[in-house]
Amino acid sequence: MSKIRIGIVGYGNIGRGVETAINNSTDTELVAVFTRRQPDTIKIKNPDAKVINISEAEKYTDSIDVMILCTGSAKDLPTHGVQFAKMFNTVDSFDNHAKIPEYIKNVDISALSSGKVSIISIGWDPGLFSMIRMISEAVLPDGKDYTFWGKGVSQGHSDAVRKVENVKNGIQYTIPVQKAVDCVRGGKTPLLTAKDKHVRECYVVCEECADKNKIEADIKNMPDYFSDYDTTVNFISEEEFKKNHSKMPHGGLVIRNGATGEEKQNNHVIEFSLKLDSNPEFTGSVLLAYARAAYRINKEGMKGAKTIFDIPISYLSPKSREELISNLL
Amino acid sequence: MSKIRIGIVGYGNIGRGVETAINNSTDTELVAVFTRRQPDTIKIKNPDAKVINISEAEKYTDSIDVMILCTGSAKDLPTHGVQFAKMFNTVDSFDNHAKIPEYIKNVDISALSSGKVSIISIGWDPGLFSMIRMISEAVLPDGKDYTFWGKGVSQGHSDAVRKVENVKNGIQYTIPVQKAVDCVRGGKTPLLTAKDKHVRECYVVCEECADKNKIEADIKNMPDYFSDYDTTVNFISEEEFKKNHSKMPHGGLVIRNGATGEEKQNNHVIEFSLKLDSNPEFTGSVLLAYARAAYRINKEGMKGAKTIFDIPISYLSPKSREELISNLL
Repeated sequence: MSKIRIGIVGYGNIGRGVETAINNSTDTELVAVFTRRQPDTIKIKNPDAKVINISEAEKYTDSIDVMILCTGSAKDLPTHGVQFAKMFNTVDSFDNHAKIPEYIKNVDISALSSGKVSIISIGWDPGLFSMIRMISEAVLPDGKDYTFWGKGVSQGHSDAVRKVENVKNGIQYTIPVQKAVDCVRGGKTPLLTAKDKHVRECYVVCEECADKNKIEADIKNMPDYFSDYDTTVNFISEEEFKKNHSKMPHGGLVIRNGATGEEKQNNHVIEFSLKLDSNPEFTGSVLLAYARAAYRINKEGMKGAKTIFDIPISYLSPKSREELISNLL
Repeated sequence: MSKIRIGIVGYGNIGRGVETAINNSTDTELVAVFTRRQPDTIKIKNPDAKVINISEAEKYTDSIDVMILCTGSAKDLPTHGVQFAKMFNTVDSFDNHAKIPEYIKNVDISALSSGKVSIISIGWDPGLFSMIRMISEAVLPDGKDYTFWGKGVSQGHSDAVRKVENVKNGIQYTIPVQKAVDCVRGGKTPLLTAKDKHVRECYVVCEECADKNKIEADIKNMPDYFSDYDTTVNFISEEEFKKNHSKMPHGGLVIRNGATGEEKQNNHVIEFSLKLDSNPEFTGSVLLAYARAAYRINKEGMKGAKTIFDIPISYLSPKSREELISNLL
């Protein structure tokens, strides 16, 4: 059986995570990584794949089945999603929640024009967590759901820490408040503020002779990012930073509590959780499973922009329907 | 908007659970309960719905959109599933794992002949747990999954207890072994026997003057059901039985541990768990969500026998695609 031919656009953390997932799969192969950097400055793990300038992607429409878009949600994907859907089946992890409705509309126009499929906002949140929220609400309409993130590294908050004056390096972990998790897990449906749900823990390497009190205050008082949370700031050495804070773990949980019965006397708790050593590699694995789906549903004639809500999950697996039914149902 | 018209076949625990779910929904209505018993001996909760002898079901093909089959998997569904798929869209919770491949084949023939859709083996296991097992394996192909059931009432084991000589009443709880759960949750992939994973706890009301030691031994040594497990037997009064053991709680968890990375150095744990006060009401709620899906996909032209792997989850929700994308993605 010939393998599904994959292209990766953007070779940051997620792009590398997708490459790793391809190398561990049996039914997909990496054709090329597309980059805006000088191709010869990029060393990829797979010796059989090429590194190509992004401007040459259109030459690959016949040799790539699905393009996995791994560029940024903030500035890149709004353009890349629309451009690439005109040429390829695509999968992306667009995570700018507020702009998803507009984004899917624009990508849909491109994908319909090319007769391709684009599956947007894939990963774990948006992605698997969205799926669980949707199913849980449909099954238990009379209830409330909660999403907690962490313990894990937030890139946005880490960037914010690193921009503080006299900070040489920094990282931020988002951590769910255990008391809140336990309360929800116990079947209760409290009203929780942002501060009730998460604390923020920062590890900072500062310039010599820097005023640590000022750095700590600058971080803790930063609006939007930290001022609404309980934040702790730990100062550590560059050495300790490299040793203990160079991985990108993440995770989180979705819990829905709902009631059934004539008098809503029966409570039910649905919980889905992830503990991930490597956020980019797990996200890359989800993206690859949906690339498989994109290829297969497009071959069956489906086209346009789709979400995780639209795709039968059987398409995610390389196994046949018979195997899935016998082994996993 | 007119409501989706539902029929229920079989008015046992699950049938009553479905009725409760319908009463709590906004877009479905119960038309009739179909029974093999004398209809006038059955009192249902919904005053607007009828109770009809099962032999008259065919008169309702024009007034029922989806028939939810709530009769037993062992003896009833192999016939009912095939019969009703010839007349109606159907949903069932067929849970005889070994016979699913044969069952789906037979139901498929009926459903294709009528142009209807039959979604089989819906509930939480088979059902939501199957879905999680499938997705988790597709995302983390290099891993291992574990399913634990409980704490909850096993009907089959409770029946077995009640058949022991001098037992007046009895119930059996299946309980996951916490040590095993913790081990798997911690990212390990041990080999676990049935005994390593679950213990069995029985509560028994016995005849006066019965030999309790003999009853306890009869239960603990029962092949298939108890002899391979650590089983405890507690003797209680009829009063205590009624007070503390008349609910049907259940639950369980599916955990998949998988590795990614060039050297499989990164571990990931996916966990899905349910804690249910009422197993039949939760199962009924899942069945109703899939009845909604059956109605909608059939209206779009899909037909034949389907599983939880085949249905895009957007069909489970009464919300529009736009609402789902804005609110839940």
